[in-house]
Amino acid sequence: MSGRVTISVDAMGGDHGPGVTVPAACEVVREWPDLDLILVGDAARIREQIRAQGCEGWDQLQVRHASQVVAMDEPPAQALRSKKDSSMRVAIDLVKSGESDAAVSAGNTGALMATGRFVLKTLAGIDRPAIMTALPSRNGHTHMLDLGANVDCKAEHLLQFAVMGSVLAEHVSNLERPRVGLLNVGQEAIKGNEQVKEANALLERSPLNYIGYVEGDHIYCGDVDVVVCDGFVGNVSLKSSEGVARLITGLLKDGFRRNLVTRAAALLAAPVLRAVLEGLDPRRYNGASLVGLRAVVVKSHGGADRMAFANAIRIARLEAAARVPERIGESVHELLSHGTAA
Amino acid sequence: MSGRVTISVDAMGGDHGPGVTVPAACEVVREWPDLDLILVGDAARIREQIRAQGCEGWDQLQVRHASQVVAMDEPPAQALRSKKDSSMRVAIDLVKSGESDAAVSAGNTGALMATGRFVLKTLAGIDRPAIMTALPSRNGHTHMLDLGANVDCKAEHLLQFAVMGSVLAEHVSNLERPRVGLLNVGQEAIKGNEQVKEANALLERSPLNYIGYVEGDHIYCGDVDVVVCDGFVGNVSLKSSEGVARLITGLLKDGFRRNLVTRAAALLAAPVLRAVLEGLDPRRYNGASLVGLRAVVVKSHGGADRMAFANAIRIARLEAAARVPERIGESVHELLSHGTAA
Repeated sequence: MSGRVTISVDAMGGDHGPGVTVPAACEVVREWPDLDLILVGDAARIREQIRAQGCEGWDQLQVRHASQVVAMDEPPAQALRSKKDSSMRVAIDLVKSGESDAAVSAGNTGALMATGRFVLKTLAGIDRPAIMTALPSRNGHTHMLDLGANVDCKAEHLLQFAVMGSVLAEHVSNLERPRVGLLNVGQEAIKGNEQVKEANALLERSPLNYIGYVEGDHIYCGDVDVVVCDGFVGNVSLKSSEGVARLITGLLKDGFRRNLVTRAAALLAAPVLRAVLEGLDPRRYNGASLVGLRAVVVKSHGGADRMAFANAIRIARLEAAARVPERIGESVHELLSHGTAA
Repeated sequence: MSGRVTISVDAMGGDHGPGVTVPAACEVVREWPDLDLILVGDAARIREQIRAQGCEGWDQLQVRHASQVVAMDEPPAQALRSKKDSSMRVAIDLVKSGESDAAVSAGNTGALMATGRFVLKTLAGIDRPAIMTALPSRNGHTHMLDLGANVDCKAEHLLQFAVMGSVLAEHVSNLERPRVGLLNVGQEAIKGNEQVKEANALLERSPLNYIGYVEGDHIYCGDVDVVVCDGFVGNVSLKSSEGVARLITGLLKDGFRRNLVTRAAALLAAPVLRAVLEGLDPRRYNGASLVGLRAVVVKSHGGADRMAFANAIRIARLEAAARVPERIGESVHELLSHGTAA
């Protein structure tokens, strides 16, 4: 990594706005002296939060006023048309103009994707950007995409997702030849729908380190680095997983609160429970990459708190420093030449 | 519930065969004096296991010899064509001939579904049977279907799944007007693919207690009784959930084994941990119903142990006693009249 990285932050997005985004920004610039952040939104409210964090006058924090905010439930097309001075739009415009290297927002996912596509455009060879995140696994983490941007995909789209996932896993997680798996309902060749069978054939001919079909439980096993699926399946898988994790932690909490004996046991068990639950804390995994655009855009969960939003900024910093979009562009170009040669 | 129930058990199916199926059968007949089981397969091996369980000569246990076994990886069409004396086929033939009321097998899912459809046929108004199971939720359990029988579904199939799920939840789990949800990537009307939007419109016009779209995490929340989805999505959701549960329990075990202090904590925490993990034990939920056939067929997990396989037999008993297939037939008939009248 060389040189400074500048990230524009949609300070108004998400359920909490500047009360969370600014403290998170202050936290991250303290960690990384080579990082600059442009906080976009209601300048007065942002400056007030900067003061409250004791970061007034810091060179690493700039403020850019934007007069509008995209609502969490606003239809993307409407946001695109009528919110040209929204904090989200201005944050992305700053990437387009070259003032920043990446944008981060906890706002409306659909609007963020639509704005990213409209302003930044998709990379040559990529039909549709995808949403990608890292999930905890037994021995590290697994990258998964698409998580909801594309509810209907063709085999070619899944191939493109695989290329993007592989590049990101290689350059951000420093994995050499990441193992790419295609999510299916079984590992045998006869299993699956037509879309998956076609994608399997494309992946087998690709230069990727394709390991074949994987099933839902493999996401968390640690035997695959990149799991590829359409956005409908990916979203359901992710949310089902969150639901089970929440069920288990809820039952554990209830169980340990039951009576004096269990409360005493909880005190002793607390360090182990805390370590396990912290390791799985969704906030540690907050920050989904909108891969396939010509620049880095990271979506934070709308309900993110300071710790979670800070993580989304860290992910954007890593991807910008590793020049992920350029590298995806190179790999797609290679793949297309490879495909033509075959 | 009135009268005796007879279930034919494929004693050879699954990874363990009679060593698991027969002890499980003995366990369940001890619980239910009004239950008869016909154990189908290699008669000598089955009798040997019955002797080992001290159940020789019991009236509730009959043995029916079958000379073949369907292999776990055998293509369903091949099993159907060339294994007419398999333990699986004979178990289902016994239901067809009226000698038993339901069949249970831990064998090859595809072959079981194909044999069930071929021998027993689907109910009038049902195009495709589905695989359904109960999953743990915060305050009971949630029924979910399809879990893998149909990787490509039309909206009409999802409607049929909803009817079948609702009937089963009503008559087996004794829920009055079960809440039926359609699995989607968001709860807003604009979310989802075409298949889901069309199914939503059909469900809104149906007489079911349809509560609209649900997301993956709702499966485990307790605010929906029946979750409907296509078999690809359902299978991925189920296996992702299993993967996360296994990850969490694995990390907890590792954490508590770390050193003497954590081992001591584990001893005190053990009753709570055990209660929580037992409540979520997949063996307690073993037994998926092949709904939509003209008789009850229950599929046990192939790797089921005695406790898990016994549970699959219990589920078959409940469904046969509640006459689930007849009731599904009635509800589908009603729905079709309703649809015509509308």
